[in-house]
Amino acid sequence: MITRIYEGRKFELDEVNRTDDSLIIEEALQISINNKPFTVTMRTPGDDVSLVRGLLHSEGILMDANYLPDLVLKRENDKGIVTSVDLSIPEKELGYGYANSRSLLSVSSCGICGRTELEDLSVPGETIDDQVRIEFDMIHEIFQMMIASQFAFRQSGGTHAAAAFTIQGEMLCSKEDIGRHNAVDKVIGDLILSQKMNQTSCLTVSGRVSYEIVIKCFKARIPFLAAISAPSSLAVDYAKELGITLFAFCRENRTTCYSHPQRTKNTKQYIKAS
Amino acid sequence: MITRIYEGRKFELDEVNRTDDSLIIEEALQISINNKPFTVTMRTPGDDVSLVRGLLHSEGILMDANYLPDLVLKRENDKGIVTSVDLSIPEKELGYGYANSRSLLSVSSCGICGRTELEDLSVPGETIDDQVRIEFDMIHEIFQMMIASQFAFRQSGGTHAAAAFTIQGEMLCSKEDIGRHNAVDKVIGDLILSQKMNQTSCLTVSGRVSYEIVIKCFKARIPFLAAISAPSSLAVDYAKELGITLFAFCRENRTTCYSHPQRTKNTKQYIKAS
Repeated sequence: MITRIYEGRKFELDEVNRTDDSLIIEEALQISINNKPFTVTMRTPGDDVSLVRGLLHSEGILMDANYLPDLVLKRENDKGIVTSVDLSIPEKELGYGYANSRSLLSVSSCGICGRTELEDLSVPGETIDDQVRIEFDMIHEIFQMMIASQFAFRQSGGTHAAAAFTIQGEMLCSKEDIGRHNAVDKVIGDLILSQKMNQTSCLTVSGRVSYEIVIKCFKARIPFLAAISAPSSLAVDYAKELGITLFAFCRENRTTCYSHPQRTKNTKQYIKAS
Repeated sequence: MITRIYEGRKFELDEVNRTDDSLIIEEALQISINNKPFTVTMRTPGDDVSLVRGLLHSEGILMDANYLPDLVLKRENDKGIVTSVDLSIPEKELGYGYANSRSLLSVSSCGICGRTELEDLSVPGETIDDQVRIEFDMIHEIFQMMIASQFAFRQSGGTHAAAAFTIQGEMLCSKEDIGRHNAVDKVIGDLILSQKMNQTSCLTVSGRVSYEIVIKCFKARIPFLAAISAPSSLAVDYAKELGITLFAFCRENRTTCYSHPQRTKNTKQYIKAS
């Protein structure tokens, strides 16, 4: 099972329908080598042994492709998903990549550690504005504005984009980068430098939306996040928990809202699907 | 300037044409805080001050959005691109994210450090097979096989895929994941576990191809790498240097080869563009 069903509200033409969508599961896997934390990777569960063996090869931890290390998979959450892998590798088998290994601490600081981080994030008095309302028609319009500003994408086909908008649909800035997270950081940095953070109500991103983008959006106190493509399970989980209204699959006048739909203006007929 | 021109050979129908394509630039940016390495990010140059300011906010390094730290940008390579940013931040301004900060060492081990890493990678006697040849028509066929195996993508629209093939076009394995690098690691791990590494000649990936995928492909000694979408500048630079034949924009019976075209079978007419 690598997808999970999430309820959404699908806005299309003049209808709003309840929908049950299969979203890809995104979960953290902690990898330890000889009882020391090695790294945390955000991945789709399944094939975890292959994932770990491939990672050890790619990172230069195990140089001998014929060596298969002992490993223990642990399931620590209530979903039965593997959450950590402990590897036992004799010192003589550890390659050059081990000495330069990634720090576990690093990744924790990004918000991967779930519950703990969610609690840390809830700074009193710094919550997301819950009074603001958005019209669905605006979602399509602001994506058109972002797309029009994707100059590097039209040249190269190789960039992600992110853009920030006021609640009236005015574009405050738009950035492109090879990395989705960089495009978002460039937008947030630009809003800080131009002192427009307080005017920002909506962040749009090209492509998919994973947990990391939701965290960045929350830290910038932006209530609306809209993506052209699919969200991950964890993106929806975090958006619900952190009070962000998440729109995804924003294409051709359609969009699906997966969290906090109370911030959407009810100008359309809401039809309950059977 | 955030794109750079690369020469390629475009295969389409019965023609092969020389093409000059704009590819998005991918370069490393090293960020130091108070003379200590903080992180390295692979990004598209430009808006570097915004990128750094946004990252400091998103990672909880600077909690006060009104605080603008002193910074020095350094250009250390011959392309005039910013390669490092040094920030001076008084200790009292450093937020909770600083204590948990990412390790610079980590990222170096992935091959970001360019020249040094390229030299490290060239293990004597472990080079990529240069005698093997591929027919272009096969590229389209193997992508059809990978696409047919993307079950989670059809359900969720939210996965990347990677697959491994023999030189005869037999699919050895195919994996999906929310992360492109994970899908590739799952494939490589599966090849190791099934002892099929030596049979593998071609790796296909959905979406774009960045430097990281080229490194993984090289470490698995796979001579052909083919992506549905755009390559980054660094992906092409690394593929040239490491001896990998890189195909990108593999869509609708078209593909462009950006490196080591000598491994392609010359069954089609080669037309030199003016």
